[in-house]
Amino acid sequence: MASMELWVAARTNENLRTALLPTEREIGKTVREAVAGFLGPELTASPRYADLYPILFTSMRGAATTYLIDRRDPRTDPHLRLWKDMIRIYLLEK
Amino acid sequence: MASMELWVAARTNENLRTALLPTEREIGKTVREAVAGFLGPELTASPRYADLYPILFTSMRGAATTYLIDRRDPRTDPHLRLWKDMIRIYLLEK
Repeated sequence: MASMELWVAARTNENLRTALLPTEREIGKTVREAVAGFLGPELTASPRYADLYPILFTSMRGAATTYLIDRRDPRTDPHLRLWKDMIRIYLLEK
Repeated sequence: MASMELWVAARTNENLRTALLPTEREIGKTVREAVAGFLGPELTASPRYADLYPILFTSMRGAATTYLIDRRDPRTDPHLRLWKDMIRIYLLEK
């Protein structure tokens, strides 16, 4: 949520924008490695994983922005089941 | 982008939050009907469509927030191909 506030500010502040970009790329890398870590090398080796990951990552970010105005419990977010199913569909179905 | 600024403000302003919620639900309904309109009744009747749509919608929102700090051209966004493939995978593969 704090990150979202920085991003909104960065839209109209070029210096802040330039300062944030490398950090955001670094965070992106950390999240990517964490997800790859818990899926494991077999699943992430699937040719479909490269297509799945950007959708999963943006969907999680898009769902998180909803929490700005809608106070739901993230632990029971209805997207959790959808994301798990999506991983299964992409990586285990053929 | 303006909507994102309102949302960020709404997080710490209860009145704004209460005022925004019904409008956001209305916009959500409009987008849902537009997407259903161009996919057509046959594809949206798929049992998988109910699972696909929330991921597609949040992924589009999540990708859009990236534009706050990364000035890309939305018409050539790499997610476009991924979203089209995802619709195909969910609605046309079995």
